[in-house]
Amino acid sequence: MNKRLEQLKQELKASSGKEMADLYIYNIRILDVYTEEIRSGSLVIRNGRIVAVSPGWEVQARVRYDGLGMIAIPGFMDSHIHIETTLLTPEALATVIVPWGTTTLFVDAMEIANVAGIQGLNDLLRDKDDLPFRLFMEVPSRVPTAPGLETTGGVLGVEEVSILLKESNAVSLGELDPPKVLNLMDDYLMKTLSAREEGRICNGHAIGLGWDDLNTYAAAGLSDDHESVEYQELKDRLSLGLRALIREGSSERNLDTLIRGILEDKLPTEDLLFCTDDKHVNDIVREGHISYNVQRSIDLGMNPVKAVKIATINTARHFRLDHELGSLTPGRFADILLVPDMNTMKPEAVFKGGKLVAEKGKILQEQKGSYPDYLNHTVTLQRDLSAGDFTTNAEGERALVRVIDLIPDQIINKEKQEWLPILAGKVSPDISRDILMLSVVERYGKNGQLGSGFVRGFRLVQGALASSVSHDHHNIVVVGTNPEDMLLAVQELERMQGGFAAACDGKILDSIALPIGGLMSPDPAEIVMNNMNRVNEAVKQLGCTMASPFMSLSFISLPTVPELGLTDLGLVDVLKHCLVPLVIKTE
Amino acid sequence: MNKRLEQLKQELKASSGKEMADLYIYNIRILDVYTEEIRSGSLVIRNGRIVAVSPGWEVQARVRYDGLGMIAIPGFMDSHIHIETTLLTPEALATVIVPWGTTTLFVDAMEIANVAGIQGLNDLLRDKDDLPFRLFMEVPSRVPTAPGLETTGGVLGVEEVSILLKESNAVSLGELDPPKVLNLMDDYLMKTLSAREEGRICNGHAIGLGWDDLNTYAAAGLSDDHESVEYQELKDRLSLGLRALIREGSSERNLDTLIRGILEDKLPTEDLLFCTDDKHVNDIVREGHISYNVQRSIDLGMNPVKAVKIATINTARHFRLDHELGSLTPGRFADILLVPDMNTMKPEAVFKGGKLVAEKGKILQEQKGSYPDYLNHTVTLQRDLSAGDFTTNAEGERALVRVIDLIPDQIINKEKQEWLPILAGKVSPDISRDILMLSVVERYGKNGQLGSGFVRGFRLVQGALASSVSHDHHNIVVVGTNPEDMLLAVQELERMQGGFAAACDGKILDSIALPIGGLMSPDPAEIVMNNMNRVNEAVKQLGCTMASPFMSLSFISLPTVPELGLTDLGLVDVLKHCLVPLVIKTE
Repeated sequence: MNKRLEQLKQELKASSGKEMADLYIYNIRILDVYTEEIRSGSLVIRNGRIVAVSPGWEVQARVRYDGLGMIAIPGFMDSHIHIETTLLTPEALATVIVPWGTTTLFVDAMEIANVAGIQGLNDLLRDKDDLPFRLFMEVPSRVPTAPGLETTGGVLGVEEVSILLKESNAVSLGELDPPKVLNLMDDYLMKTLSAREEGRICNGHAIGLGWDDLNTYAAAGLSDDHESVEYQELKDRLSLGLRALIREGSSERNLDTLIRGILEDKLPTEDLLFCTDDKHVNDIVREGHISYNVQRSIDLGMNPVKAVKIATINTARHFRLDHELGSLTPGRFADILLVPDMNTMKPEAVFKGGKLVAEKGKILQEQKGSYPDYLNHTVTLQRDLSAGDFTTNAEGERALVRVIDLIPDQIINKEKQEWLPILAGKVSPDISRDILMLSVVERYGKNGQLGSGFVRGFRLVQGALASSVSHDHHNIVVVGTNPEDMLLAVQELERMQGGFAAACDGKILDSIALPIGGLMSPDPAEIVMNNMNRVNEAVKQLGCTMASPFMSLSFISLPTVPELGLTDLGLVDVLKHCLVPLVIKTE
Repeated sequence: MNKRLEQLKQELKASSGKEMADLYIYNIRILDVYTEEIRSGSLVIRNGRIVAVSPGWEVQARVRYDGLGMIAIPGFMDSHIHIETTLLTPEALATVIVPWGTTTLFVDAMEIANVAGIQGLNDLLRDKDDLPFRLFMEVPSRVPTAPGLETTGGVLGVEEVSILLKESNAVSLGELDPPKVLNLMDDYLMKTLSAREEGRICNGHAIGLGWDDLNTYAAAGLSDDHESVEYQELKDRLSLGLRALIREGSSERNLDTLIRGILEDKLPTEDLLFCTDDKHVNDIVREGHISYNVQRSIDLGMNPVKAVKIATINTARHFRLDHELGSLTPGRFADILLVPDMNTMKPEAVFKGGKLVAEKGKILQEQKGSYPDYLNHTVTLQRDLSAGDFTTNAEGERALVRVIDLIPDQIINKEKQEWLPILAGKVSPDISRDILMLSVVERYGKNGQLGSGFVRGFRLVQGALASSVSHDHHNIVVVGTNPEDMLLAVQELERMQGGFAAACDGKILDSIALPIGGLMSPDPAEIVMNNMNRVNEAVKQLGCTMASPFMSLSFISLPTVPELGLTDLGLVDVLKHCLVPLVIKTE
C-alpha cells in the first residue's frame, strides 16, 4: 500500500499543478454523466487516472493531445461477455472491440473453466494489465452447469468459487441459472452467499421466468438478468430488483424490441445496462460492439446522454466500480473516447488508462498473448468411434421422438414430438421435414459417453457439422444427415484439437482449428474472421442458410436453456433438470 | 454460513408459497423505485426480509396486515448523522425518528470516538439488532481531527481505522476534511486507501472548496459531500464525481436553496442523498427527520417519487447496500412505511425487518440501552481552575484581537479583527458590540490546557454558558460576559460529568447532565427535550435569543470548519491548519 500511497501523492500533486501531468487532453467538450451536461474543458491525467477536470490553472504535461473540439465520453463497457465465444484470445479480441470504444469487459469465462477448471480460468484472465481494455472476472457459478447431466473437463465447487471471488479483479458470481435456485440446490445457494460475503454481486440468467418464479429468484440475492426478450420481461425484472442488461449478440438480438418498449413506456434508464453476451467477430467488425447498442438506441430515439450512461456509469455502478470507472471525473481511470458528436458513437480516439490505444477505427499496437501448452491439448476421445455410435436403435416401424425445435434468432428452443421412420432397426432422420441427427461426444478422455437426439432448424440436405464449442460443457456436438459424415467431422476435430468442421460425402469440406481449450484460435482477428466466413460459405453448400450455423449448433447442447438440451449423457429437460428418453414410443 | 443457508432456504420456500410466511401485508399500493410506478399489490415477508412481491398464489402467513389501500414505500435513510449530537442514546433517538419513518442511519460516531476511542465507538454502536432502525458505521477518519492542535480522549490511527473498516456494519471511511487531502497528509491518505481496499466508500466534508481544490479532493478517492450551501456548490460536486448529500439539520438548513436550484436547473436526481448531519431532538419531534427533507422537497415542487428515491434507493446504492435496502423487492429487508398518499410523508405504519415498530406517529415498544460504566466518567479537569484562567493578559490600552464572527444558521464563521479595551492588564470583552469571552478547557485529565478567544453572535448580556459537547475534541467550551460565571459553569459540568450549564451572577441558572461520554443523556427523548427547552428558555434571560445556543457553542471549537476554531491549545486558522495568536497587536 505504500507504493500506492506514493502514486496517489503524485496524482494529487498533478491534480493541483504542483507536478507535471502525464497527459493533457484539451480543446474538448466533456460529457458529465452526473449532471448530464456537456461542457467545454480539458482533462489532466497522471498514472493512468484523471486527476483534474478543466482546471483553472495552466497545465504542464509531458504529452498534449488536441481534441479538436470533439466530445469526450467514458469508455464503453460490456456488462456480460463470454470471451471464448468470439473464438479469439483476449488479445485478438482487443483489436476489434477497442477501436469501437469498448474499454472494459465483465467476463464470465465459464467456457474455459468448464474445459480446464480454475487453472484454465486464471491462465486466460490474469495479468492482463497490458491489454488495451480492462478485464473484470465474473466468477463462473456453474462448472458444471448440470451436475450429473453432463461431463466437463473442469469443476468449480463452492470452495473454488469462494477462492476466486477474493481475486482483486473478481466482481461477481457469474450467471446462475434458475433451476439451481428454484430447486434450492445447496451448493449453488452457498455460492451466492459467498458472493454476498465478499461484497460481490450475483449475475442472473433468468431466462423465461414469469413473475412468481422471478420473485424466488430475486429473493435468493440475484442482482441482474440479461435474458429479457420482450419489454414486459425487462420491466418485471426491474420491478423485482434485478438490473436489466439489454443484450445484442449474434444470435440474441434483443435490443430493438427492448429499447422501443422502454421509450414508449418512458421507463427510467438508470438501472439498465448493455451487453453482448455472445457476439461473433464478423458481426463486431461489421456493426460495432457496445457502440452498436448505444448507437442503435440513439437511432431508435433514446436521448444520447442516457444511452451513453447505460454503457458507462450505470454499468460501473452496478459492479460497484463507479469510483474507478464510468465517468470522466478525478480519481477514475482515464478510459476516454473522443466522438465527433453525440449522435455518432464511432470514436475517433480511444484512451485506456491515459494511453492512446486506438485512432480512427484502428488499434495502434499489436496484441500478442501467450498461453501454456496444456491449454492446446484438451480434446481426447476416450474410445474409437464408429458411424454406428451416432444412430439410435429402435424396433418397429416408426418412433415418436423428442425433437429440439430451434427458434430462429433465439437460443431457446421448443420440444416437439415427431414420428420418424425406423429403418433397419435405427430411427431415421427426415431431411424433407428438416429433422436431422444430433450427437454430443464426451471429449475430455474421461468416459467416452455419447448422447443422441434429433434437431430441426439447420436445413442441411447433406453432410454434417461438428463443433468442440458446445455450451456449457464443450464436448463435441455434431449435426448431420448421415452418421458417416458425422463421424468424419468429429475425427477432424480430434485431429485439430478443437474447432469447427464440415464434412460431406466422406470428405472434410472445410474446417477451422480452435486449439486453445478447443474454443479459441491463437490467430489474429482478421484471419479468424476470414476463416469463419469461408467455412460458413462452405456450409451453405450443405443446404444450411443460417447466419451463424456453428454458433446455433453450440447452444443446442446447453442443458440450461429451455426447453431441451443434449449432452454426452443424453436429452435434458431443462426446466425439470433431468434426463428424458429420446424415444417416447414405437409402433 | 450454514445457518444463513438454512434461513435462505426458508425464505425461498416462503417466496414460492411452499412454507408459511411470517407476515403478509395486503391491500396496499407499492412504490416501485426501479420503474417509478405505483401498483396495487402485496408483500410477503419471512425472516425479516421481503420474499415475494404481489405473488399470483394464495398467501398463508402467521400475521396478516391490512394496508387499507395505503402506499408502501421503503424506509427512509439518513445518509450522514452524528447520533451523539442529538444528545440521545441510539435507543432514545429511535423513539423520535422511527415514527417519522427513518429506518436506517449511516452513523459517523466521531464524537464518542474522540472521547473514548475504539472501545467507546464499539460500545455505542455494536449489537444493535434489536433497535427499531438499522445502524451502519461510517468509521471516523479524524480522531483527532487536528493532530497537534487539540487534545482528545481517544485516538484512531491508520491501524485502528483499518480494523474498524473490516467490521460487518462498516460502510465507509467517515467524513475527511479537505486540509488532510490538500496537504497530502500520509496518515489520512492511508485511511482512504484502506477504505478502498476493503471495498468501502469515503465520505467527504468538502466545506467551502472551490473547483480546483475539489478536483484534488475528488482525486484522492472521496465519494460524497454534505456541505453544499449554494446550488452551484452542489452541482460542482456532482460534476467532479462526488455524490451530493442535501443536509437539513438544526443549524445547517441547506435544503430549500439546494432543492430550488435542482428544480430550476432540472438536474437529474439519481446521485443525490438526504442527511441531517446534526439535528436536535426538539426539531425532529416538531418537523420530522428525513421525512422532513422528503416532504419539503415535494412541497417545493419535486416529483414525490424522485424525492422518496433520494431518501431510499439512492442512499442504499451509494453505500453499496442496494441488495439489502432501499427498495421493496425480494431479498431486501422488510423496512417498509405505509403513507396515505405520495404527498404526505408522515407514515401511518413503520416496519423494520418485518416487525411493526411504529404506528400513527408513536413508537410501539420501549427502547432501553445499556452502556458500560466507564462511559459515564469522562470529564476530568487536570487542575483546579480559577476565574483568572479564562482571561487574556495584555499590556497597553487596547488590543487588536481575532474574533470568531458567527454566521446565523451556518456552522462556518468569519475571522474578524476587532479592537478591545485592555482593563487591569486583561483584554476585556465588549458586551455592547457582542464580543464575548470564549474558552476551551481540556477535560480528559491529560494536560490541563486551556485556550481562549473572543466570539460574536451569542448576544449574552450577562452570565456564561458551558458545554462538554464541543466538536470534534469535546473538551469543555464556555462563553461568557465574565470569568467568574465561566468558571462556575465549567465546574458544574465537571460535577455532572458532562452536559450543558448556564451560570449567572455566581449561581447556576440551569443545567442538563449528559453523562454518557459527556455527550449523551441516558434519559428518554421526551425528558431530554423538556430539559433542553427549559434550559434554552433560561438562556434567554441572559440575552441570548439563538434557537440552539448550545449547539452553536459546540461548533465554535471545531478546528475543521472555516475560518477560525478554538481548541484547548488556542485559536486555529482552519484553512492553514495551524495555531494563530489571539492578540495581533496592542497599543
